[in-house]
Amino acid sequence: MKIVLIGSSGVIGGAVDAKLQTRHDIVRVSRNGGDFQVDIANPASILDLYKEVGKFDALVCTAGAVHFAPLDQLSPEQFEIGLRSKLMGQVNLVTFGLKHVRDGGSFTLTSGLTNDDPIPQGVSAALVNGALEGFVRGAAIELGRGLRINLVSPTVVEESVPLYGAFFRGTKPAPASEVALGYVKSVEGAQNGRVYRIGWSREGAS
Amino acid sequence: MKIVLIGSSGVIGGAVDAKLQTRHDIVRVSRNGGDFQVDIANPASILDLYKEVGKFDALVCTAGAVHFAPLDQLSPEQFEIGLRSKLMGQVNLVTFGLKHVRDGGSFTLTSGLTNDDPIPQGVSAALVNGALEGFVRGAAIELGRGLRINLVSPTVVEESVPLYGAFFRGTKPAPASEVALGYVKSVEGAQNGRVYRIGWSREGAS
Repeated sequence: MKIVLIGSSGVIGGAVDAKLQTRHDIVRVSRNGGDFQVDIANPASILDLYKEVGKFDALVCTAGAVHFAPLDQLSPEQFEIGLRSKLMGQVNLVTFGLKHVRDGGSFTLTSGLTNDDPIPQGVSAALVNGALEGFVRGAAIELGRGLRINLVSPTVVEESVPLYGAFFRGTKPAPASEVALGYVKSVEGAQNGRVYRIGWSREGAS
Repeated sequence: MKIVLIGSSGVIGGAVDAKLQTRHDIVRVSRNGGDFQVDIANPASILDLYKEVGKFDALVCTAGAVHFAPLDQLSPEQFEIGLRSKLMGQVNLVTFGLKHVRDGGSFTLTSGLTNDDPIPQGVSAALVNGALEGFVRGAAIELGRGLRINLVSPTVVEESVPLYGAFFRGTKPAPASEVALGYVKSVEGAQNGRVYRIGWSREGAS
């Protein structure tokens, strides 16, 4: 399979790469490194990427920015960061990618637990993660051509605790290698419209 | 209680008005009619509204547009309709309204079932409805001052079946008067961060 991996230089992206590269051809894409570069917040950059990459069998996105700040300080412009990058960046990867993905191919996007298990300063992330769940369920029933789409919703990643741990006090981390399993199941399995919650459960959160 | 009702001229807004007006002072707001006018897709219009309305105890929003179209025809501009109106329109009503709502007050927003029970051509609605769930859960834990926020997620409204029924084949409608109960519980109850699913259940949908 030819797998386009957006966010290949990140912690999760690297772990997905490690699991899939032994069996597949990985096209590594990131903001600055990789085989190709993309700024997913810029629709024109996504169009350019697809021109360069050509046909593919699976797209995995582990990239996307969102702004963390207290609710009463979050400006519309700060909400816009998550809307443009993690949300519409991933949505556009799918809608623009429909012309380039081969029959039977798949898209696997990334959200996170904050929409069901909210944290202080995480309201924009919660909004974006909830939106991605809705999008993936909605898109799954309309894809056709044997195409599939799934979402990986990881808990905080162990390797990222030094960076983000202060936002996720009391949340049990999972190693990136465990989070990567969700992407492997989505790409190499046959399910469609699923949310793979890695390292947490909705029942435990609510 | 002084209750600001955005969308007062709509089917759901009218039903909420009927249930709450006997016990409360309703400030009716809609796009063209009502006591005051607002275009929730325009942040400046929301700021103007709050200047005119003054302090209030509860805000209910039953307004918000979203574009329905097949996934492979939905342009970024069409996704933007839902992002600007039903999503960020309601989000901005809350974040801008924090300065104007009295201690112990509440916000009640409106989503819909499509993020859990998707329909053809409904992927933008599914995205927006999922985002609103995440936002409300995230905002609920940060409000302070005894403030509360809840979300009403109605099934298709019986009175709107002539208009929208073709999108919701097989979905059991509920009358607007039943949907209105969710808003009454949110405004006059004491719960926070809840999603009131009216006329459907997540278990039945998935």
